[in-house]
Order: sequence, then structure tokens, then C-alpha cells
Amino acid sequence: MCRGDDATCPEFENHRRDFLEAMDHERRAFLKSAFVSGSGAAAFSTGGLSLVTSALAAKAEARQRGQKSHYYLPASAETVHWGYLSKLLKPQLELESGDYVTIETLTHRASDDTELMITGDPGAESVFYWTKDRKNVERRGAGPMDASLFGRGAGEGLGVHICTGPIYVRGAEPGDVLELRILDVEPRPSANPEHAGRAFGSNAAARWGFHYNDLLTEPKPREVITIYEIDALGARNWAKAVYNFQWVPQTDPFGVVHTIIDYPGVPVDPASIRKNFSILKNVRIPIRPHFGVIAVAPREADIVDTVPPGYFGGNMDNWRVGKGATMYYPVAVEGALVSVGDPHASQGDSELCGTAIECSLTGTFQLILHKKADLAGTPLEGLDFPMLETNDDWVVHGFTYANHLAELGAQAQSEIYRKSSVDAAMRDAFRKMRQFLMHAKRLTEDEAISLMSVGVDFGITQVVDGNWGVHAVIKKAIFAGD
Amino acid sequence: MCRGDDATCPEFENHRRDFLEAMDHERRAFLKSAFVSGSGAAAFSTGGLSLVTSALAAKAEARQRGQKSHYYLPASAETVHWGYLSKLLKPQLELESGDYVTIETLTHRASDDTELMITGDPGAESVFYWTKDRKNVERRGAGPMDASLFGRGAGEGLGVHICTGPIYVRGAEPGDVLELRILDVEPRPSANPEHAGRAFGSNAAARWGFHYNDLLTEPKPREVITIYEIDALGARNWAKAVYNFQWVPQTDPFGVVHTIIDYPGVPVDPASIRKNFSILKNVRIPIRPHFGVIAVAPREADIVDTVPPGYFGGNMDNWRVGKGATMYYPVAVEGALVSVGDPHASQGDSELCGTAIECSLTGTFQLILHKKADLAGTPLEGLDFPMLETNDDWVVHGFTYANHLAELGAQAQSEIYRKSSVDAAMRDAFRKMRQFLMHAKRLTEDEAISLMSVGVDFGITQVVDGNWGVHAVIKKAIFAGD
Repeated sequence: MCRGDDATCPEFENHRRDFLEAMDHERRAFLKSAFVSGSGAAAFSTGGLSLVTSALAAKAEARQRGQKSHYYLPASAETVHWGYLSKLLKPQLELESGDYVTIETLTHRASDDTELMITGDPGAESVFYWTKDRKNVERRGAGPMDASLFGRGAGEGLGVHICTGPIYVRGAEPGDVLELRILDVEPRPSANPEHAGRAFGSNAAARWGFHYNDLLTEPKPREVITIYEIDALGARNWAKAVYNFQWVPQTDPFGVVHTIIDYPGVPVDPASIRKNFSILKNVRIPIRPHFGVIAVAPREADIVDTVPPGYFGGNMDNWRVGKGATMYYPVAVEGALVSVGDPHASQGDSELCGTAIECSLTGTFQLILHKKADLAGTPLEGLDFPMLETNDDWVVHGFTYANHLAELGAQAQSEIYRKSSVDAAMRDAFRKMRQFLMHAKRLTEDEAISLMSVGVDFGITQVVDGNWGVHAVIKKAIFAGD
Repeated sequence: MCRGDDATCPEFENHRRDFLEAMDHERRAFLKSAFVSGSGAAAFSTGGLSLVTSALAAKAEARQRGQKSHYYLPASAETVHWGYLSKLLKPQLELESGDYVTIETLTHRASDDTELMITGDPGAESVFYWTKDRKNVERRGAGPMDASLFGRGAGEGLGVHICTGPIYVRGAEPGDVLELRILDVEPRPSANPEHAGRAFGSNAAARWGFHYNDLLTEPKPREVITIYEIDALGARNWAKAVYNFQWVPQTDPFGVVHTIIDYPGVPVDPASIRKNFSILKNVRIPIRPHFGVIAVAPREADIVDTVPPGYFGGNMDNWRVGKGATMYYPVAVEGALVSVGDPHASQGDSELCGTAIECSLTGTFQLILHKKADLAGTPLEGLDFPMLETNDDWVVHGFTYANHLAELGAQAQSEIYRKSSVDAAMRDAFRKMRQFLMHAKRLTEDEAISLMSVGVDFGITQVVDGNWGVHAVIKKAIFAGD
């Protein structure tokens, strides 16, 4: 069924209206959602410390319309871009600072089990549609459209995430800071009636995983997919494994054989695999629903692989970016051009095997623009990296290269995969936390360095996204005596 | 006053008896101590999941005496070894599996402010005693006694931690596993009557810190000491800064000038420094009292620098090793030879600037021996790395080299400082967590790898101890469905 996202449907207008009504209900309901977040309750709803001072909040508010709008952006072949970010993309939505938007996001690994994660779901069917004659979303990745590099398919799978958007924020200009509040996160239920009330996700232990060339058991190397089940009703805060299988060559509808996992959205033929159901018995994975990718469009290149994160956010893969969290991004292009994707039901720090529990989610966000002119003297002045605020913590994100697109020259987007280093990401995270403490908290360098050693925790965000990540977490309570 | 730790005191026997009585009181009191731990309540007192199966516990119990003893090991010049571990050290105490011991530990940075952390404290005065004629603890570090390498002093400061012990566990042999339960941790109050009820610690932002060659402000480079105050009565769960100062050359009592921080226990001359009191105003550091160093004696060398950690534990610098935690160590030499030191009031993951809040503490421990013959088929079988259990988590410790003493050849103890790498430590932590999940939790490699990606958090323990550390944390609740 069209859910207001298929303009070719004869009932499109009615379906669209239903959508908007559902959206309104959604907006009223989002603060009482029972879906559990691992990242702590809303920073903005508890009156806790915030990087947005009351004066800055007042300035932002003064620039907003009195009446806020709440938009709904469904995921469909028309509203997503797959595997790349681009400042040239046509916005799917334009909104004003202060507006709300509910955004559907789809996992690019849904085709690991089409029956569980695609069939019967109009949005997913629209995005994943691929027959011998037609692919609804042709480009998948930042590579050439003619697949002249590796012959994998259009875009070559150089970048894999399905991103919904972009969203144009009116008035946003380079130098501004975009505040993005995550008000709610909901799993996308399976449309398969046999699995009512459940959602599913896929974890790929893939060739780009940290483990891949370091396996103990045969066959070596191998790629393994594990399918997980999540309670879509929010009553159970853990996921469980359903089955796993070893990847075997898959022939896509255009006839290309994918011996390894090298192109997103290739439908796995159930007849080709052997499912092992006796796995991870009684193991309960705590859920941490979050978005692996939230990006503003980078300025440096026209088409950017979604995999390596950077100053623009992107594929940070930090599980703390969930319900109740607020992100701050430096706006790099006019309109900011926000894209959201790579939804995860859960992930550990490091995302060791290459992916999380990749699981379609719908998020509700509020986007607030802070103009450069208002930022002087505030903690957000000069922010040039993606910064996270939760109810309890501030988190800075270091990468092997703070801005690989600018630092690594013309071949930056391939070069970054050869430079991956936790050591370098630790260096970057140290410098960013120092900058934060010296600038936003007005400490001297000596104060900042001592505090970092005794009160800041450095963790490994991910070791699988080319531009590897280290995050540094400082508790807000440290400053509660102010 | 002698506290039963000075055999030359004419009242030694009386003081010793007082000690033993105080110890008995201590034992009765330790489970109701109010001193706050950051690492979660006792794993062993809550009936939570434990790596010690009930069958293994029964076997260990059957090997113990019915009547447990509780010993008290004070810190004095006679009971500590400074800057090195050694399988050749004469034990300060012999005990049976199951016995309790309260151990005083002293921070090696107490001489950064002698008035606050040494004066009037007989144990600290005994250990730090150093005049132009005599040093009570001559050797400090694993270097040559004649200081023929750098002229810094006996042992050359190659290793810095004051360790109390070692303790000989009767019956312990290589291949066994030693379980060490941390029942209580108490700060050591200042003996200065002006500071009754307070304890103090020192944080050195030192030349081995991660920041040292990457400073923004002049003078570059510099070393800075920050003195912190802790509530010794346990009512306040945060520390605050008192003052800081830049290190200036200090002349030790033997006349050696220490232009940089290169030898432990050099008394800082208050007249030589400029104290800045206006620092870290209103900043509250959450306390996480723990022991940076708990070691069994390594087998590979006769005298081992305390700084780099390894399979024997040692200077792991993980703040989770506090009250309520249990450590498991592979016994490497007869009697295990347990040493405890490097007490910290708090530390962040990474210990960025080179040290924590270095603060003398007293801990109460129970030591339980698990014989190799009892381990078959249990989670502890074949354990060859230090493993931590808290109420909520299991934690494995990866290092740049799992065993630098064995892997780096004859010059291992200097070579390790040239090989430091978070990337390599991440690799080691991955392998150890995989081993734990496959062995202790009986998962296949594919199950273990998927679980690690979606449910295990990898963090940076320290980037300052030569053999850099990455820990991997898995929640016990993941297996609560068993």
C-alpha cells in the first residue's frame, strides 16, 4: 500500500492526507514513547546544563516563527539517496529553524532477509525495488555511474547507507551551527503479518571488519550475516539473534555476481544459504536505538562516500546518538542539507565486525539554527566538529583525520581507507576535548589537561569506517557546581 | 608515631597489638563503609553472575581452612618495594587461600606536597625518608643501583610506583588462577591537623603524557602538578582542585638536580614553586577510588619496571578496579607474590596526562586460590591475562603487547616504550574478548564476533604506560537469560 509516498498511486492524495494526520498524532505522542533509549533521557527536556545558553536560545527563538511546523518525511525511492552525501542534491523538504520533522530511515542491509524487512513495506519495497529491467535507486555509492571501476553496479557501492533527505534549513549558511534534537526513535515493524509486533535487523561481519583477516576458525576469511529480532512495541529492551548464515555468492537482478559483500541492496537468495538457528541462545543484547549517519552536506566535494565520518558528522556510528540526545554540527553549505540514515538497533563501542544491528527506524527531530552572529562568546562559537550532548554528558568525536576530505588531497576518499588509525583518532579527540574545555568552559590549557586525565573517558567509537573514531566523554555534573 | 610498622620503636609490640585490634574492627566494618566507589557494588555480595561457578567455588572452599585470618599490612620502608616487581622479593606476608588482608598503599607523588601528604604520617614518613645521608627506600625503579645509566638515583626511576607487599599465597603455583576481591577502599587521611578529615592527591601532567609534545600555550614543553582534595570521611563523592604549579628544577637530598620529573619521591621545595590557587573553580571530579597497580610477580625477569602492565596485571590503570570489583590473575610464580600500589582517587579512561589523582588509599582484599586441577571446564581455565569482574560487567584488558616481557626480547623493558600503540592494544583486546566469549561462554567464533560488534564496548584504558591499554566491557546482563 502506498503510504503517501508513491506519487503514481491513484489514491496518492488520500494516502498523503492520512500520512499527515498520522504525523500529527506522532508529534503529540513522541514524548511519551515507551521505546527505550540507551543514551539517557532528553537533555533539553530536563532543564540540565546545555551548550545552548539561555541567551543563545532566546536569540534562536527570536529568529523562529511563532507557529512551528511538523513535517513527515517518508522513505521512498524518491526521498532517499544511497551511499553518498552531496551538496548538489535537491532538498526533499525545506523547513524553518524550530520546526519538527519525523524521518523514516531504512537500513541498507534489509535485503539480507527480504521477507522479514522489505516485503509488504511500501517504503522499503520502493527503495529496494530491483528487477532485471529496473532499479528504483540506481546510484548506490560515490563511484562512477557506469561501474567502470569494479563492475559492481552504479556508484560501485563506494558508500553504502540509505539516507533520507536532504532537508534544507532556511537561512542556514556556512559558519552557523545546526542543533539537532532527537526527540523520539521508533523501530520500523516488519510488514510480514507472521511477525506482527516485531522488527528485524541484520549484522554483517564483513570484509571491512576489524576481525576479518584475524580469524581462528575455517573457512578463512568468511563473511557472516546474523539476523536479530527486536520488539517493535517497545516492551522489551533487548534484541535476540534469530539465525546466521555465511555469505555465499549472490547474483543480483542485473546478473552481476557478488562473491563478497561489495554492493548494497543485493537481495540474498534464501535458497542459496544455510540458516543456522541455534545461535546466541539466551543472549540478550541491550538495545541502543540510534542513527549511524546524521550529516550536514560537506563542502569539499560534490559527491562524498557515506562511510568515512568527518567534521560534517556523517557515519559517526556512536550509539549515544539516540533518543534524548542533541547533536551540534557546523553548517558547511547553504541550507545545511541534513540527511539521516544508517539506523541501528544496537551497537557496541568499536562496531568491531563492520556493522551494528542494522535495523530500520523512524526518528522525530527538531532542528534549530544558531546563526554565526549569535554565537560570539558562547560555547558553540567556532565549533568545527560534530558535538554530542546527552542528559548526562558532552561528547566530542575525534577521527583519524578531522577532515579527511580537506587533508588528504584529490584522492582523499580512497586514501582514507589506507590511513585508518585509532592512535591518530585518539590524538584528534584529545585536541577537540581540549578545545572544548578551553573554549566552552573557559579553562586554561593546564586545567583542561589535568581534568582530561582525571575526569574524561576516551572510548573507541568505530574501527571500521575508514576514518576511525575515538570519542571523549565528560560528565556535565563535573560543572554542576558552577 | 609508630603504628606497629616500625620495628625500631621501643613500643613496637604494643603498637603492633593496637594495629591488630584496629584491623579486627576494620574487618567488621568493611562492608558498611560509606566510601563511594565508581565501579559498582560488590559482584560477590549480590549473588550476580560470576566467573567462579558454584562448583569451582566449592572446590576452592574445600581447600581453605575453616577459620579465615585477616591480616593488616601497613606501608613502611620495610613493607614496600618502589618502582619494580620481582619474583625474588621476600614476602611481607604469607596467607592461606580465603584469608583477608588490609593493605596500606602510598602514592609515589606524595612528595609533591610533603606537608599535605607525608608530614606526621609515620608510614609515609618512613617510606619517603630521605636526607643527605640516608634514603629509607634506596631503590626506586628497575634500573641499576649505582645510577650508572642516567645518574638520577638508585634504580634510575625506571618504574615509579610504591608497591606494598608482596604477599605469598600458600599453595599457589604457575597455572593456577588467583581471585582477588576488593572488599573495601578507604582514602588515607592527611596527618596534618589543619586538614583533618581531608585526603589529598597529586596529578602530574608529565613528560610521558599524551599531551606533552602537543601543547598550545607557552612555555612548551612544561610539566604541571595539580593538587586535589578528597573528602576522607566519605561524605562527598567528588574531588576538587586546590592549586597547581609548574615543575621547576628540584634538587634532591643527595644533590641531584631533577630538571624534569624523572625520579619518584623527590621532595618538591615549596619555596621553589609558584602555586596557583585560582584553578578549576567549581569543578567537581567524580571520585573513582582504585588501585592503578595490582600485580602477581611476572616470571620472565628478575626485576621488572612497574610502569608497563601485562599478563601479570601490574599497572593496568583501570579505574574500574575499585571497591566491589574482583580481579583474576594467572599465577606465574610460586606463591603468586601479590603487590598492590599506585592508589588513585580518580582517573579517566586514557589517563591522558600521565597520571591520575594519585592519592594514598587503604584496601581490604580477599585472596582466593583456584588450583589448575579445579579449572578444567570452567570459565577460568587457561586464563592468561588479567580479567576484571564487577557487579555489572566483565572486562578484558588488551595491551600493545599481551606480554611485552616475552615478546620483545632482551631489551623488552626499554623497547616497549618505543612500540606504544592503541591500534595494537585494540587488536589484543579483540582477541582476548573473543577468547573469553568462545571459551568461557561457549560461543562459536561467528557468534562471538557478532556479539562483540553489537554488545561489547571497547575503551582506551591508558596511553601513558608504555604498553598502552584497551579494555573491552561486556555486560553480564547479556547472559542473564541463561
